[in-house]
Amino acid sequence: MSSAPAIDPGRVVADLRELRQRTGDADGAQRLCWTETWREARAFLGELLAEIGLEPDRDPAGNLWAVIDGERDPALALGSHVDSVPDGGWLDGALGVMAAVGVLRAWSQADRRPPRTLALIDWADEEGARFGRSLFGSSAFSGTLEPATVRSLRDADGISIEDALAENDVSLDQVLEATARQDRVGAYLELHIEQGPVLEAEGIRAAAVSGCAGVERHRFRFRGQASHAGTTPMDRRHDAGLAAASVALSVEEIGRRRDGVSTTGALKLRPGIATAVAGEADLLVDLRHPDANTLAAMLADATSSGEAAAAERGCELEVERVWSIEPIPFDADLVAQARSACQEITGSDRVLTSGALHDAAEMARVVPAAMVFCPSTAGISHAREEDTPEADLVAAIEAFGLLANRVLAS
Amino acid sequence: MSSAPAIDPGRVVADLRELRQRTGDADGAQRLCWTETWREARAFLGELLAEIGLEPDRDPAGNLWAVIDGERDPALALGSHVDSVPDGGWLDGALGVMAAVGVLRAWSQADRRPPRTLALIDWADEEGARFGRSLFGSSAFSGTLEPATVRSLRDADGISIEDALAENDVSLDQVLEATARQDRVGAYLELHIEQGPVLEAEGIRAAAVSGCAGVERHRFRFRGQASHAGTTPMDRRHDAGLAAASVALSVEEIGRRRDGVSTTGALKLRPGIATAVAGEADLLVDLRHPDANTLAAMLADATSSGEAAAAERGCELEVERVWSIEPIPFDADLVAQARSACQEITGSDRVLTSGALHDAAEMARVVPAAMVFCPSTAGISHAREEDTPEADLVAAIEAFGLLANRVLAS
Repeated sequence: MSSAPAIDPGRVVADLRELRQRTGDADGAQRLCWTETWREARAFLGELLAEIGLEPDRDPAGNLWAVIDGERDPALALGSHVDSVPDGGWLDGALGVMAAVGVLRAWSQADRRPPRTLALIDWADEEGARFGRSLFGSSAFSGTLEPATVRSLRDADGISIEDALAENDVSLDQVLEATARQDRVGAYLELHIEQGPVLEAEGIRAAAVSGCAGVERHRFRFRGQASHAGTTPMDRRHDAGLAAASVALSVEEIGRRRDGVSTTGALKLRPGIATAVAGEADLLVDLRHPDANTLAAMLADATSSGEAAAAERGCELEVERVWSIEPIPFDADLVAQARSACQEITGSDRVLTSGALHDAAEMARVVPAAMVFCPSTAGISHAREEDTPEADLVAAIEAFGLLANRVLAS
Repeated sequence: MSSAPAIDPGRVVADLRELRQRTGDADGAQRLCWTETWREARAFLGELLAEIGLEPDRDPAGNLWAVIDGERDPALALGSHVDSVPDGGWLDGALGVMAAVGVLRAWSQADRRPPRTLALIDWADEEGARFGRSLFGSSAFSGTLEPATVRSLRDADGISIEDALAENDVSLDQVLEATARQDRVGAYLELHIEQGPVLEAEGIRAAAVSGCAGVERHRFRFRGQASHAGTTPMDRRHDAGLAAASVALSVEEIGRRRDGVSTTGALKLRPGIATAVAGEADLLVDLRHPDANTLAAMLADATSSGEAAAAERGCELEVERVWSIEPIPFDADLVAQARSACQEITGSDRVLTSGALHDAAEMARVVPAAMVFCPSTAGISHAREEDTPEADLVAAIEAFGLLANRVLAS
């Protein structure tokens, strides 16, 4: 039996550049899901697939599928998303889709069928940038999307998600029918940029990802007493803004102490003017950790710190969960294979946890899944500056292709 | 010679109630300057003056004057402002104007002329609530208003200040001609609510005011690095929001330590979302102290704290003065007389500094001036809940009337 056909990383990079040229502008990538530019990106993807004799189809959630039948089923699926945030980067999502095309291209040119069916999935609306619901297509596939909870969403122009979906021949009432395809998939792999600074800092070109960190996102609302900045003595204030400021600093400490990440990137003061002590402060607390128990402890720490700050300043505190997701570990065996493939190509066996969510997290709910990361220059993503040195891209694409072929054969 | 005619505090309170009924609604006082409701308030003031035989006139800045000629000139002027913030309180400004009417009413009914000419001045647009320029009329009178710096101001509906003034027969090009009336005034007194919690807390019904604190208001702009909340390790962040939070807490300490007041009521984070470390933070720092040297030291402390916070987090800091005013002490002799009048009526000789600005601060630049404060329930002002217990109002009006008569005679 001939050896598995190797991916051509140079062609994958060329496809990414072509996609950038066709769908980006001076402000960056504009492949906002359910828009004309996103459809153009998919049309380009269709051209690439047609070139290797494949005709994609779509599931009821708008995810695009292309399949090469193999010796056996179910399929190894490779995927990511061509949609981007507005003014986004050229690699986020697109890298994984074009790398998947690269694996399929290699097999389409081989003299035999793959040992296992091979599927490419381009997930719809991973970013949620237009309607605020991330992982749309992959969560419809996994069955965790609840159509009722998104039905009222509208974009900045007031267009409803139902109308935007209908314009793309997707019916919100039918998206969960995508779950019917779960039986077709036996494993899932995704290549993605790290979107953080760790791999670059450590000089690593590609690394296996052990899972996605869990997230606890809560609104801490402090209610004190708005009062005149000039006439209210310091010892008679109930400054909700300072209660929030002290909690923001405590939350930072919690992330450091618990070896997770913790962020307070949104703070709104009311009345929010220079001449008034803040009577109300809304602080968004975002806590992330790959271990569920530690994540719960971080939340308990943050809540205690909020209660102490409120008590100290005679404020009231209301804590409301905005969103949360449990940590999602990837499949141990696939992670080990990803680690070994990366080590073979790059010399490093680094494994890291993803602090961001990916379609692979939704896939991991229903099939064994794993990911490979490559570095992000300066850790920047979701911006036109998003980049990865070409040598790192090539190494990561090679490692991903090697991994895919090994999983196909296993 | 008969004794000076005493003010009737009950009538002053009744006039205030009538004003509230005519120009307020369920949300509070609506005497926003240069609007129809403000003109209605002035029309009511005109009725009260007509009742005692006085016909007011206006200076070129739109300030309303009513005069009772006395034995000698220049006049003792009594005043404040009938304009209010939107949804404001019934006493802020109105109290001082109606108390001035009360003093003029008593003299209009006396069997002799006052020993000194007595003037009432209702200052135009003390609040600056519509165009953002406080102390409009009194600063035109004192000559510190610079028409060029306000000409571009517009209200929330886009109406220019020039058009709003013109609608009220005031020409921005001529407002400084109000300075011509400076010669007519030899001293100025103003009764006002404290707008803070001190007098209520100390159980004091009326107190002399020694001057207005100076203000240093600066924008601290921290520039760090926006980055992903999930993928940026704690030790690789440059969180501008946390730099601002730590400075807000330091600024509080500065106010306490220097025995002034210090407030950080406005903070804007960018991008300002839960999923991103703040790359930029704008913090407004408002510092107040009656002593100029101490105020300068407070500003130096705040700037040092900002520089330290920026350095600690690898951020850049830019400090920009938004607005400042030097401390304005009132006339020592008038303050002593106010203190003695308050003590005679209330038993307390408390003297306090105003942390808020008043028309009296502008007057103090050109003539000897002083103020009397009465308590504000719960320290609340600029809101419909603004109130003062009636017994306190009566005592403060009596003290103010007594003070006016003594200054007239002195």
